[in-house]
Amino acid sequence: MNRLSLALVHYPVVDRDGNIYTTAITNMDVHDIARSAKTFGLDNYYLVTPITAQQELAKTIAGFWTDGTGKLKNFDRSSAMELVSVNNDLDSVVEQELLLTGAMPFIIATSAKPSLEKTATYEEAQKLIKSHKSTLLVFGTGHGLAKTVLDRADVVLTPIYGVDDYNHLSVRSAVAIILDRLRSR
Amino acid sequence: MNRLSLALVHYPVVDRDGNIYTTAITNMDVHDIARSAKTFGLDNYYLVTPITAQQELAKTIAGFWTDGTGKLKNFDRSSAMELVSVNNDLDSVVEQELLLTGAMPFIIATSAKPSLEKTATYEEAQKLIKSHKSTLLVFGTGHGLAKTVLDRADVVLTPIYGVDDYNHLSVRSAVAIILDRLRSR
Repeated sequence: MNRLSLALVHYPVVDRDGNIYTTAITNMDVHDIARSAKTFGLDNYYLVTPITAQQELAKTIAGFWTDGTGKLKNFDRSSAMELVSVNNDLDSVVEQELLLTGAMPFIIATSAKPSLEKTATYEEAQKLIKSHKSTLLVFGTGHGLAKTVLDRADVVLTPIYGVDDYNHLSVRSAVAIILDRLRSR
Repeated sequence: MNRLSLALVHYPVVDRDGNIYTTAITNMDVHDIARSAKTFGLDNYYLVTPITAQQELAKTIAGFWTDGTGKLKNFDRSSAMELVSVNNDLDSVVEQELLLTGAMPFIIATSAKPSLEKTATYEEAQKLIKSHKSTLLVFGTGHGLAKTVLDRADVVLTPIYGVDDYNHLSVRSAVAIILDRLRSR
């Protein structure tokens, strides 16, 4: 199977007013998304933050389950946490995928708002994943990815719509739904 | 549209060893699942716990957003939290649905393990929801619903499978995926 990985970006993202800021890593994002990533057979779960103290926090959370007493306590959690790595920025994530496959990863960004150009449906994204050695699904925290991240993506996935215009899902829920749509049996 | 509601059960559920116990309400379960329920047009999100202090906690969390300063701060969160109510047990949830519609709600339980009997696929569940005045989707916390809850359900939904046998999703992620499968446009 071709590689499919996920990056959760804490900077650069936008706040409620559209200003660029940095969000904090949350324990629940690390856990829930690692479990979803493992369930749907992803190869890596890259946490992206430029803040050193936050990087240390994320390593401590994941490390407890992969090295520490957590591994003995809960093997299932441990095998999910083994997908987690902590990274400064999207460039270093792209570089790691490039080193692993020899090709630039195909970048699929996600957004709760429809993109005016380069939109991909879920069916199109499934085909794109199959036709690239490595694909990176990029999710934003806060109120979503900064424009610079959307601009560098190859495509932007169609937003998740429920029954009407309300689509204020948590990033944890959005990741779960998108992985299910792209990768479920 | 016929009624579709969700109950998150904190008792009776099973622990890792299959013993009956009571889990604690978590802030993230209230928030994430309320947002998913609102996105997918559910009518109610019933939190079920027999512990008075836990009921008060849940009311405080939801109440902050529906009555307090949270409503002014974040209307989107508020409209999700308006779906939340706190209940002693599944009987009182069933009774409320009965009062609202004059008919017993159809009960669809969920489980990470396949059921030996009365399984419903997602397509079957969609049809069942359309053919009943009110349907209650029941999710367990901890390591899943107690047998007594599964036994009283009319059907048990097929588990979510990813790419192999690992399916240790958080209940927040499982709710998101199941609502998407049952209710997405």
